[in-house]
Amino acid sequence: MSETKKIEVMENILSENDTIAAEVNRAMTEKGIFVVNVMGAPGAGKTSTLKQVIRRLHGLKPYVIEGDIESDLDTVTLRALGVETVQINTGGACHLDSPLIRKATEDLKLPSKGVLFIENIGNLVCPAEFVIGEHVKLLIVTATDGSDKPYKYPLAFEKADAILLNKVDLLPYVEFEELFFMNGVRALNKHAPVFKVSGKTGDGYDEVVRWIEQKAAEQ
Amino acid sequence: MSETKKIEVMENILSENDTIAAEVNRAMTEKGIFVVNVMGAPGAGKTSTLKQVIRRLHGLKPYVIEGDIESDLDTVTLRALGVETVQINTGGACHLDSPLIRKATEDLKLPSKGVLFIENIGNLVCPAEFVIGEHVKLLIVTATDGSDKPYKYPLAFEKADAILLNKVDLLPYVEFEELFFMNGVRALNKHAPVFKVSGKTGDGYDEVVRWIEQKAAEQ
Repeated sequence: MSETKKIEVMENILSENDTIAAEVNRAMTEKGIFVVNVMGAPGAGKTSTLKQVIRRLHGLKPYVIEGDIESDLDTVTLRALGVETVQINTGGACHLDSPLIRKATEDLKLPSKGVLFIENIGNLVCPAEFVIGEHVKLLIVTATDGSDKPYKYPLAFEKADAILLNKVDLLPYVEFEELFFMNGVRALNKHAPVFKVSGKTGDGYDEVVRWIEQKAAEQ
Repeated sequence: MSETKKIEVMENILSENDTIAAEVNRAMTEKGIFVVNVMGAPGAGKTSTLKQVIRRLHGLKPYVIEGDIESDLDTVTLRALGVETVQINTGGACHLDSPLIRKATEDLKLPSKGVLFIENIGNLVCPAEFVIGEHVKLLIVTATDGSDKPYKYPLAFEKADAILLNKVDLLPYVEFEELFFMNGVRALNKHAPVFKVSGKTGDGYDEVVRWIEQKAAEQ
C-alpha cells in the first residue's frame, strides 16, 4: 500500500473522530457535565488520582468512564467507592476514541451536574492524538519515570491543560532533575499548571481539585 | 469510512511489516548478529538496562538502534560510552516497524559478530504488535508501576521472551504484590524467565546477560 493511501486513511479516521468528539462535547456541556480526559503512561497513577480527586469534590457529582485494553480492576475499585463507572475494554486498541465515548455516555446515567472523568488507556503517546469530547486534558507523569519525559513524548505535554507530577513521596530515592523537567514542559506548554502530588499520601490534591472546580464553573 | 475498510488497511500494514521483518531477521542471522527488541513503558528503564547489560557482555560487540518519538538524549548517553548507536526519530509514531529497522541496519556498520539491541518507543501497547526482525523480545516493567500490569497490558507479557522487573531497589517504598504480578505473568506466558533488576544499582543484570549470551549462542 502506498504511503499516500495510508496517510489518507489516517486523516479520514482523525476527521471522523473530531466530528463525533465535538458532538459529545456539546451534549455534555448542555447537561452541565464537565469532561476531564485523564492521560498518562501505565502505572502513572491515573486511578489513584481519581480516588484522591473524587473524595475531595464539593457539590459536583463524579462519573467515570474507565478505559482499559483488558480487565476491569479499576472499575471494581471505583464502584466499591460508590462512583458510577462504565468500563470500556478496547481489546487491543492503544487509545480511546470519540465513538467509544459517545456509546459509553449513553450507558451512563447522568441525572445531575457533575464531572465526568475519562481514564484513558495507559499510554503516553497515542491518547494525545485523539480528542474524545473533553473540556480539559489532565496529564499525569511520575517522579520515578525520570525528568526527560517532556523531551521524548512532547505531544502529550503540549496538549495538556494541567500536568500532575505524581509519586513525589519517592523523590528522596530517585534521580529527578526538576529544573530540566520544568524547562522541557515550558518549552512545549507555557500555561498549564504543574501540580506536585502523591497518590499514596494525598499530598497536593487539594490544589488539583480547586483547579478542576474552577474550570468546571467557567464552562 | 467503513470498519471493514479500516481493518483491511491495518491487515495490509501488518502483513507488509512481517515480510520485511523476516528479511531483516535473515540478514542479521547471516551476519552473526543477535537482535534483541527492548520494550517497555516510558521510564521503565530501557536505556539504563542497556547500559548495565552492555558493560557486562563478554566477547560480543554491542550495537544499538535507539527509537524515540523525538530527542536523541539516550543516543548521546550511549555514544558517550563508546557504543555504536543509530537514532531513529519516528516524529509521532508510537512504535518502531520493520521498514525503519531495515533502513537503520543499513546505516550501522556491523563488521563483527555481536548483539544488536533495538530500544523501542516507550509504550506498553503498540510495540508488542509489530515484529521488527528480532530474535528475542525483552520486556521491562517496574516495581513502581504496580503489580497489575500483566492484567491490563497482556499482549506485551504474552509475547515476551524474558521479563525484567526493574527498580526493585524501590520495593521497600511502594506497594507491589509479587504473587499477584507473577500469577498474571504466568497466566499469559508459561516460560519467559522473570529477572528482578535495578538499573540504578546493577543488581540482577549478571543473570540477564547470561540469558542473552546463551540465547545468542543457540542462534
